[in-house]
Amino acid sequence: MTASIAVPAGPSGPGTAYARAHLRTREQPVRPIPGLYWHPVAEPDPAVTAEIDRRTKRWAVHEVDLYPPEWEDQFEAFGFGRYVGLTSPNAAGLDQLEAAARLLVAENAVDDCYCEDHGGSAHGLGARILMAHSALEHPHSVEPYESGWVQHLATQAPCRAYRSAMDFFDRLAPDQVHDRELHDLARLHLGYLAEAAWETEQRVPGIGEYLMVRQYNSFRPCLTIVDVLDGYALPADLHDHPAVQKALALGSLATTLVNDLYSYTKELRSLRPHVNLITALVHHERLTARDAYLKAVGIHNEAMHRFEAASDTARTRLPDPVTARYLTSVADWIDGNHWWHATNTGRYTLPDFGDHPQGEPSP
Amino acid sequence: MTASIAVPAGPSGPGTAYARAHLRTREQPVRPIPGLYWHPVAEPDPAVTAEIDRRTKRWAVHEVDLYPPEWEDQFEAFGFGRYVGLTSPNAAGLDQLEAAARLLVAENAVDDCYCEDHGGSAHGLGARILMAHSALEHPHSVEPYESGWVQHLATQAPCRAYRSAMDFFDRLAPDQVHDRELHDLARLHLGYLAEAAWETEQRVPGIGEYLMVRQYNSFRPCLTIVDVLDGYALPADLHDHPAVQKALALGSLATTLVNDLYSYTKELRSLRPHVNLITALVHHERLTARDAYLKAVGIHNEAMHRFEAASDTARTRLPDPVTARYLTSVADWIDGNHWWHATNTGRYTLPDFGDHPQGEPSP
Repeated sequence: MTASIAVPAGPSGPGTAYARAHLRTREQPVRPIPGLYWHPVAEPDPAVTAEIDRRTKRWAVHEVDLYPPEWEDQFEAFGFGRYVGLTSPNAAGLDQLEAAARLLVAENAVDDCYCEDHGGSAHGLGARILMAHSALEHPHSVEPYESGWVQHLATQAPCRAYRSAMDFFDRLAPDQVHDRELHDLARLHLGYLAEAAWETEQRVPGIGEYLMVRQYNSFRPCLTIVDVLDGYALPADLHDHPAVQKALALGSLATTLVNDLYSYTKELRSLRPHVNLITALVHHERLTARDAYLKAVGIHNEAMHRFEAASDTARTRLPDPVTARYLTSVADWIDGNHWWHATNTGRYTLPDFGDHPQGEPSP
Repeated sequence: MTASIAVPAGPSGPGTAYARAHLRTREQPVRPIPGLYWHPVAEPDPAVTAEIDRRTKRWAVHEVDLYPPEWEDQFEAFGFGRYVGLTSPNAAGLDQLEAAARLLVAENAVDDCYCEDHGGSAHGLGARILMAHSALEHPHSVEPYESGWVQHLATQAPCRAYRSAMDFFDRLAPDQVHDRELHDLARLHLGYLAEAAWETEQRVPGIGEYLMVRQYNSFRPCLTIVDVLDGYALPADLHDHPAVQKALALGSLATTLVNDLYSYTKELRSLRPHVNLITALVHHERLTARDAYLKAVGIHNEAMHRFEAASDTARTRLPDPVTARYLTSVADWIDGNHWWHATNTGRYTLPDFGDHPQGEPSP
């Protein structure tokens, strides 16, 4: 539990009980989506959250010079400290939470600066994305070109962030986990490029294609590393087993669809409207926005049920207790991610179809 | 040695000695590039080569319906059987060679049909590439969309080939090697998309960027699996060690630059001229084509020297004999790939700068 992590400076955390009481008295009411299948989570220790926010902002603003000063407010609004605290309730320590936060910040910067509204575009994206990906690996070629490329990467803020975040993570992670994180970041980058192609082609993908791509452009790079964040490592033969891979794919999909549902109104307002599951359902299944939204909730719930069934199957087929521990860490990440979205009311608002009651946690 | 593999039908192979004699009397003279650093290899048993060609063509034309009949000649000219025989001189059996050939055929089909001259283009490539990548993994979502996507993949010849080639390979490979092959195919696909971005932007990349991208759009998916082709498996903790990763990256770069050098004149003739190392050197370093070609030979040679030094370092740092065996298999692949390019004179011709002597093997 993050509540047990010692914060070296500032008031020590009064723990989960306090946090839960605090949550109930937030000014913004908590608003889970009606009908959504989800599980309640413990609020992280506010002192731990504040310490991770402090560390991450120091790193982002002063160490890798990622943000111009005018973006600082957006950085704070995102709430990276609370996000990683919610998603890693059993983190082994502050360094693990900082590693998760750095990677999350860097992933967001690459997405914002190369793909999205902070100067990104679909045009030429493949070259920018591979430049960023090369910052995660140490590029090897011949001199003077190898050094020249490394120097070029250092001039690019998102690449500096990726490189530094990965170096920090590598201090905590065995080579196997480093390699699987790189693989899942390659998956993420392929997903970005598929979505950019839809924009270039001005095409709304069918639902089957959309759901496939959302297994790539997904939170999977966050899910994959939960073992290292919690202070252990899932061996490669277990991680790479098809039963575990299936659970990871379905869990990544479900947790990413939560983002589609909570960010639906935010994306409707953006300069370059996104394809998401709801707009794709409206387009291809001729549904009203309300019916498409409800159908998307059902698709998410089914993905969650399938994730939980696949996790049960993997636990049965691979009785090593570390598999069960890993799948529990993954489920914790998914539940924390839901709650972060449900309570990040500064960033997300729910669509008002005029009829939704307050959501309740699933049994 | 492939010479020791029993071919179930047809004349049995007279072995390497015969093959070497046969090679010296080819009508087309063997033409290694003058000044290139390379190592001689044994010619594979012609009976084995013929059997792999027979199996692979049966699979490609009759099982996965990959090629329309009018492409059959091109299929034969490529010489997949000889290619995998040259690059895997210690293959464990015919199935391993067939697995390598199927993957090579499928990779070429994806490149030809989605990126290159058989109907491919840079426009919308990200979506086609991720569709193909999803055929390598079993996509997981919810019904009816999951089944719908699988049915859609079955209508696409390159996706059928990828799926079938990977299934065949998986019968021989542990999950760990399946996962690392997927990772290197993700790298390859990111490389395709970076090159497509150059075309979209009508931009010639600098040499540092070009060499970086050539570590992604490279033969690495062929190198990675040499352990399975030779009948063993390199454990994840050795494969993922930075010393082995460095050797793999440099080896992949060197063997890919061989392709640049041998296909230079072929690419000059193509409908959509490619950026390659030589054209990038002409553009950015204001060299004549001849001087750029000679400089590219030097860059290749330096990459080879660095690969060999990195392999030596990895062998020293990781004294487990399986590391040394793996790096030898990788070096064999690189040497065989060079010889295939040097002797595939139907596909490749050398540029005529009017002054090149016959190349000699490096000491």
